[in-house]
Amino acid sequence: MNGAESLLSTLTNSGIDVCFTNPGTSEMHFVAALDEVEGMRCVLCLFEGVISGAADGYARMARKPASTLLHLGPGLGNALANVHNAKKGCVPMVNIVGDHATYHLHYDAPLTSDIEGIAGPVSHWVHTSEAPEHIARDAAEAIRQAGSHRIATLMLPADVSWGENPAGAEPAVSIGAPAKVSTERIAEAAIRLRSGKNCMIMMGGGTEVTLERGHKASQIAEACGAQLCTDVFPTRVARGEGTAMIERLPYLAEMAVDRLKDVEELILIGAKSPVSFFAYPDVPSAIAPPSCEHFVLAENEDDIDQALESLIAALDAGETPPRIHELALCDAPRGDLDANTAAMAIAHHLPQDAVIVDEAITSGIAVAPMTATARRHDWLNQTGGSIGWGLSAAVGAAIACPQRKVVCLEGDGSAMYTIQALWTMAREELDVTVVIFNNRKYSILELEFARTGARGGVPGPKAASMLDIGKPNMDFVAMATGMGVKATRASTAEEFSAQFAGAMKENGPRLIDAQVPSLSG
Amino acid sequence: MNGAESLLSTLTNSGIDVCFTNPGTSEMHFVAALDEVEGMRCVLCLFEGVISGAADGYARMARKPASTLLHLGPGLGNALANVHNAKKGCVPMVNIVGDHATYHLHYDAPLTSDIEGIAGPVSHWVHTSEAPEHIARDAAEAIRQAGSHRIATLMLPADVSWGENPAGAEPAVSIGAPAKVSTERIAEAAIRLRSGKNCMIMMGGGTEVTLERGHKASQIAEACGAQLCTDVFPTRVARGEGTAMIERLPYLAEMAVDRLKDVEELILIGAKSPVSFFAYPDVPSAIAPPSCEHFVLAENEDDIDQALESLIAALDAGETPPRIHELALCDAPRGDLDANTAAMAIAHHLPQDAVIVDEAITSGIAVAPMTATARRHDWLNQTGGSIGWGLSAAVGAAIACPQRKVVCLEGDGSAMYTIQALWTMAREELDVTVVIFNNRKYSILELEFARTGARGGVPGPKAASMLDIGKPNMDFVAMATGMGVKATRASTAEEFSAQFAGAMKENGPRLIDAQVPSLSG
Repeated sequence: MNGAESLLSTLTNSGIDVCFTNPGTSEMHFVAALDEVEGMRCVLCLFEGVISGAADGYARMARKPASTLLHLGPGLGNALANVHNAKKGCVPMVNIVGDHATYHLHYDAPLTSDIEGIAGPVSHWVHTSEAPEHIARDAAEAIRQAGSHRIATLMLPADVSWGENPAGAEPAVSIGAPAKVSTERIAEAAIRLRSGKNCMIMMGGGTEVTLERGHKASQIAEACGAQLCTDVFPTRVARGEGTAMIERLPYLAEMAVDRLKDVEELILIGAKSPVSFFAYPDVPSAIAPPSCEHFVLAENEDDIDQALESLIAALDAGETPPRIHELALCDAPRGDLDANTAAMAIAHHLPQDAVIVDEAITSGIAVAPMTATARRHDWLNQTGGSIGWGLSAAVGAAIACPQRKVVCLEGDGSAMYTIQALWTMAREELDVTVVIFNNRKYSILELEFARTGARGGVPGPKAASMLDIGKPNMDFVAMATGMGVKATRASTAEEFSAQFAGAMKENGPRLIDAQVPSLSG
Repeated sequence: MNGAESLLSTLTNSGIDVCFTNPGTSEMHFVAALDEVEGMRCVLCLFEGVISGAADGYARMARKPASTLLHLGPGLGNALANVHNAKKGCVPMVNIVGDHATYHLHYDAPLTSDIEGIAGPVSHWVHTSEAPEHIARDAAEAIRQAGSHRIATLMLPADVSWGENPAGAEPAVSIGAPAKVSTERIAEAAIRLRSGKNCMIMMGGGTEVTLERGHKASQIAEACGAQLCTDVFPTRVARGEGTAMIERLPYLAEMAVDRLKDVEELILIGAKSPVSFFAYPDVPSAIAPPSCEHFVLAENEDDIDQALESLIAALDAGETPPRIHELALCDAPRGDLDANTAAMAIAHHLPQDAVIVDEAITSGIAVAPMTATARRHDWLNQTGGSIGWGLSAAVGAAIACPQRKVVCLEGDGSAMYTIQALWTMAREELDVTVVIFNNRKYSILELEFARTGARGGVPGPKAASMLDIGKPNMDFVAMATGMGVKATRASTAEEFSAQFAGAMKENGPRLIDAQVPSLSG
């Protein structure tokens, strides 16, 4: 087999059987190999930002990495922002980046660039395969390096792809088991939780907050009188009926600082010590008070379930019941459509086992509290702060979980970053309902402008025009239709509720252009 | 004034008075400064790929750099592909990349990344400003480093932006004059051109082929019996009535190799020795035969006009007339709409002083030959091979030249990379007519698949599906309308011709969704 075929077989042998791509000339042998090697589902995206966002959403829901196939340095550059988001969310990804043939590089053709240089800042592991007989081994190493939480980026020169590899593919790579948390660490956590101090257990980061983990953490918190929360943007959280009551740290640093001001001891599970998303004049970067002690019970790559179980045993908390949400659905809303009534409709109609992909920024603020007691669902957050993630992540989540309804909550501004994702939803007939909160503003930036105190917090006319995306207004119904996705516009709560309910009952991609006011009206 | 204000003043003092941006929280003080400092036109784009593409198109037509304002590492990542294209085209750009406050970096907030690392591969100069009192000096250095052909990327931490800078702004930066080409080099060129060998003068690269330069090069070629051509993708070329007849090297390496097989001496002006765009099994990377001598008359940064004038003097070619295109318009086409009839209509109706931005790939192949004798126009090529440049470059060209009609020729696949550019065309009421050659294929990749010889040159069904963007078909009329751009669909040559003629007579953004067959039908 040639290098491309041995690469492809090595990926599928390890269960990496989805590849998001937009290939170019240097990747044609990889593309050709799709018809020679069984078992790889290759998903075409019209822009590489969609590719990396989809790989992120896929990995979170499939609990294994997807591969991406990217076209040289610029293709990786286009993917970079969503690789960054995945890296910050500790989501694994195996990027394959095509390059010119090794002997062609020194001619400095138009698409030649320092691909390793571009890959470095967003990858944990970077490697260029140098010969066809190395590519299977290199791919296996990429899979091992990606593991369950990391970004591995492997460059595939065209001649490595088309050259013969007599050695063939590598067998399945075994990913190391997560590290056990030591008895000493468990004992120390127990002492701290029983110290009588004001303790808070903080979960999240790249550690999935599953139903079971939430229950165990709640048992621990209840047994010790500790508080329990997640950080602002945990990668994945099980929510709704039957899940534990877990607070979420507020986004606004001012509010988060106030929330933590009396906390004396933070017990961290996956989450890192919370910091302000941005710096602001006269606002501290660290959220917890300087006197607060931090204790890391477990990092993302540790055995979280074992840590929780051991701690429950150490605290003798096995009989303590967790605090659980019971089902309590919002009423279907009436009247004006706004962030609150839209949230009510979503909470009311959300079906069992839905996956919510949240990049709705300011307009989505009411959805999380209102869905806390909705039917059981998983919630994926934007982990790296680079907008343009949601639509793409929804593509990946839907491919990972074809039996579950994916609901993608998007701001109008963030939707426009990777709007091309809609086409892949249509092409792959994915069961995604996209809600665009169309408020014709970068509403978050109006808030942030005030928070930075620039110009006394009040934008002048030129600054205000940079925050305003309503001239011209964007018509997402037209754009979605243009990419093959059925779409409707909702201007009242009743319209939105009916359209959302309808979308929950149907299968396939659907977009609702929800006309909502911005924070500033 | 604060750092942001001194930065802004330093830019405008040096005539950098356009900034393409999509700012975020870390850039709010820069945004605020727009209302405090006179003279900066700030153009909002919905995605950073549009920003850098627009800065490229602007600089080519304005003959001075634009600035960009980008949001941390991911914002720069989104811009990266079109910065790459500009770098390969030797187009100057001054990128300002906001970052977290210096003291906030070590907290590793979600948007923290190695921005210098991302910037390095696509910049000639990278620097992080470390204090408010440095920012004006650093900005002046960025302008100097960008000069007329380079990429300068300056990181602006938020506290450098909001801190006080008592020193204020820097005065206008003087860009060094281009280097004179030595008498010895001119004499050597004259000897080579008069050697009796088969000589070819090749212009292009980042060197603009102006009307005057074309005439002079043609005089030289005529006086010496040399051939005259440009490389495949020169950055900017004056074409049409009254311009010199200058051949263009073919894109296909096989054809280019054949074209140059008898050339014994290449005289290079701006252009580099031609190389194959990609590597293919059994196709040479270098286009010129191994025996061909190369002589660099002038590099991009040299004084091209002086070099040509001196060479004319050395050859005593001042009286030799250049070979000039006379006006000869194609007939308006009738019948089926395809690459040829669309090109005829464009050539027939193109108004005087139009600017053609070409990213039409396979479908645009007939436009260049047919417009060779059209009314005078400038032609901008895609210089770095990363698709998603055209619509964005058209935005910048239209802002640089508000009195000229910009015609953007786009493939459907490449259009989707930065489709968000349409919104900025509508918002700024730019006089751009976009022609989408909608053939529902990555047609170039069908050709490239065959050229690479993968799977015997014949894609299997899975490979074929990766080259097919017609499931679902994209409706560019709907998408453009959704972003506020008037749009029509053309399915016959008569419809296209009438719509294009109408667009040429009107002012403002307009899109034509031209339904054409792909190369493979």
